[in-house]
Amino acid sequence: MAQDIKTADIAIIGTGPAGISAAITAKIRNKEIFLFGAEPVSSKVAKAHRILNYPGLPAVSGEELAQAYKRHLDELQIAVTKKRVHAVYAMGSYFAIQAGQEQYRADSVILACGMTADKPFPGENEFLGRGVSYCATCDAQFFKGKTVAVIGYTKESVEEAQYLAEIVGKVLYFPMGKEAVLPGLSGNIEICTEKPAEITGTMKVEQLKTDGKLYPVDGIFILREAVFPGQLVPGLKTEKNHAAVNLQMETNVAGLFACGDIAGTPYQYIKAAGQGNVAALSAVSYLNRKKETV
Amino acid sequence: MAQDIKTADIAIIGTGPAGISAAITAKIRNKEIFLFGAEPVSSKVAKAHRILNYPGLPAVSGEELAQAYKRHLDELQIAVTKKRVHAVYAMGSYFAIQAGQEQYRADSVILACGMTADKPFPGENEFLGRGVSYCATCDAQFFKGKTVAVIGYTKESVEEAQYLAEIVGKVLYFPMGKEAVLPGLSGNIEICTEKPAEITGTMKVEQLKTDGKLYPVDGIFILREAVFPGQLVPGLKTEKNHAAVNLQMETNVAGLFACGDIAGTPYQYIKAAGQGNVAALSAVSYLNRKKETV
Ligand SMILES: Cc1cc2nc3c(=O)[nH]c(=O)nc-3n(C[C@H](O)[C@H](O)[C@H](O)COP(=O)(O)OP(=O)(O)OC[C@H]3O[C@@H](n4cnc5c(N)ncnc54)[C@H](O)[C@@H]3O)c2cc1C
Ligand SMILES: Cc1cc2nc3c(=O)[nH]c(=O)nc-3n(C[C@H](O)[C@H](O)[C@H](O)COP(=O)(O)OP(=O)(O)OC[C@H]3O[C@@H](n4cnc5c(N)ncnc54)[C@H](O)[C@@H]3O)c2cc1C
Repeated sequence: MAQDIKTADIAIIGTGPAGISAAITAKIRNKEIFLFGAEPVSSKVAKAHRILNYPGLPAVSGEELAQAYKRHLDELQIAVTKKRVHAVYAMGSYFAIQAGQEQYRADSVILACGMTADKPFPGENEFLGRGVSYCATCDAQFFKGKTVAVIGYTKESVEEAQYLAEIVGKVLYFPMGKEAVLPGLSGNIEICTEKPAEITGTMKVEQLKTDGKLYPVDGIFILREAVFPGQLVPGLKTEKNHAAVNLQMETNVAGLFACGDIAGTPYQYIKAAGQGNVAALSAVSYLNRKKETV
Repeated sequence: MAQDIKTADIAIIGTGPAGISAAITAKIRNKEIFLFGAEPVSSKVAKAHRILNYPGLPAVSGEELAQAYKRHLDELQIAVTKKRVHAVYAMGSYFAIQAGQEQYRADSVILACGMTADKPFPGENEFLGRGVSYCATCDAQFFKGKTVAVIGYTKESVEEAQYLAEIVGKVLYFPMGKEAVLPGLSGNIEICTEKPAEITGTMKVEQLKTDGKLYPVDGIFILREAVFPGQLVPGLKTEKNHAAVNLQMETNVAGLFACGDIAGTPYQYIKAAGQGNVAALSAVSYLNRKKETV
């Protein structure tokens, strides 16, 4: 089994300017990399109207910047692994990465997965792992025949809700924006239009409160574009919901780096690209030091 | 007289990726700026052979990146003031900036002046202001009729030596690279080909030691591309010859920011551009806070 696990020097999570910049610099430094994220690039790049302050590309549209990034990745033969990373575990000498349904392994990890503007729901952090989940693929099996709520923020939420419906008894689907709207009712999925407000329970999740109603549920899947950094990597030190980093983009976990929006304000393209470059060079130094001590 | 002093919200020193990025973001945020430095851009950009890791501009030549920066500055109607800054003084509520022969004033300052690879000569820091100078324009008058050495690293060193020769008694000229070679002997300038090694004296500069000889001198002008950060701004905290900054690019002096090579390693274009953007936004916040407390 172990032979099946794909390995690399550096796993980079995110295909915004931070992750793409990290991938470019890591590749130039001859490292084997994984680059996980939306393909070809982050929607925050592709959908931007016009970007005035990316030096060297005056008044570029998001679509043009996305194309330019894609060309850059192609020229360096960097492929994007279009998978969602659900968890990163620091194992001491390496990192175990759960992406989609697969396991990956890397000697160092760069978090470049952006930030969500949303705040966690009251009760969300409290019931995480006790009914609250961010990953249908990972956790659907625990809710066979039961009732779950899906709070969907992304386009992919629709597919995840449909997948859940194949396994669980009933899905209450809360679309949180036009991206996440289901094309129509389907089977055991009920569409709910109120706004979720609070997650309650005793030992585990029991209800989802909305602004109008109280839904008894066994589980709640919250599907956002980005997860909160501390939820992705157990043990990661955070500050105001961001990964805490120093000027070299090092986190408190040896071999783990963060860059871009996830590493703090300001939220800006060129700042993210600059930090991605620094994170990659810091990862390269880390790998070199690691080699020396083996 | 005071009416003659030009004023701005933010003075940016340096036209490398850090300074250009800071200027672009500051301008978009509607601030009045000065942008001091080589025109149109830093020689470290213009002379680069091929740059592989500036995301969005794959395998760009230095000349192409310089052109792209120039276009960006032109589109935003940002003019470069082609002047060398000799000193920045924090005056409490504003900064006094000595550039060329003029005085400027700004509410905040962004240092983006790169780093020199050279180390200071033994004795250089000790005799700074006591015979050692970095600015012919500023200090020539103190050496009327005397003998001075010029250690020239830049193309402009030649002009500065010629200007000094008009005022002082004798100039010993040490060219430190092919950029700085004098076209021929001229008047009271003697060209010396040994390598300067040490500056000695008691209360003030008395000799320049080279690898072969001992020259009695009254003053020594050291003309590098960049000065050491602590020499440009009295009171600036430094770390390993760099301006000490935090993640927001703040230095220890309120209203003074630093970015790019001057703010520490790695020395990279995209990192410099990213930090310039952050420095500009931090300067904007500083100006807003300042306005509120007035
Ligand atoms: C409407 C809007 C307008 C903006 N305008 C400007 C502007 O004019 N100028 C400017 O400088 N900035 C602007 N920004 C900010 C800019 O979009 C961000 O600062 C920038 O995109 C951050 O880059 P990043 O690489 O850190 O993250 P993102 O660009 O957010 O990229 C994150 C990446 O991580 C991936 N990801 C997240 N979680 C996971 C996971 N678990 N597994 C796998 N992949 C994951 C995502 O798919 C995505 O590819 C704007 C933002 C918005 C929302
Ligand atoms: C040979 C070489 C190859 C390189 N290759 C790469 C590469 O492939 N990729 C990469 O990412 N990086 C590379 N670098 C590094 C890159 O050049 C620097 O990191 C980058 O230029 C730093 O930008 P900066 O804006 O901080 O400073 P600089 O580009 O050095 O700009 C400094 C600016 O400040 C001005 N200035 C300085 N002092 C004063 C003063 N007192 N008054 C007024 N103006 C002043 C200068 O005129 C200049 O305009 C290379 C460097 C060298 C030397």
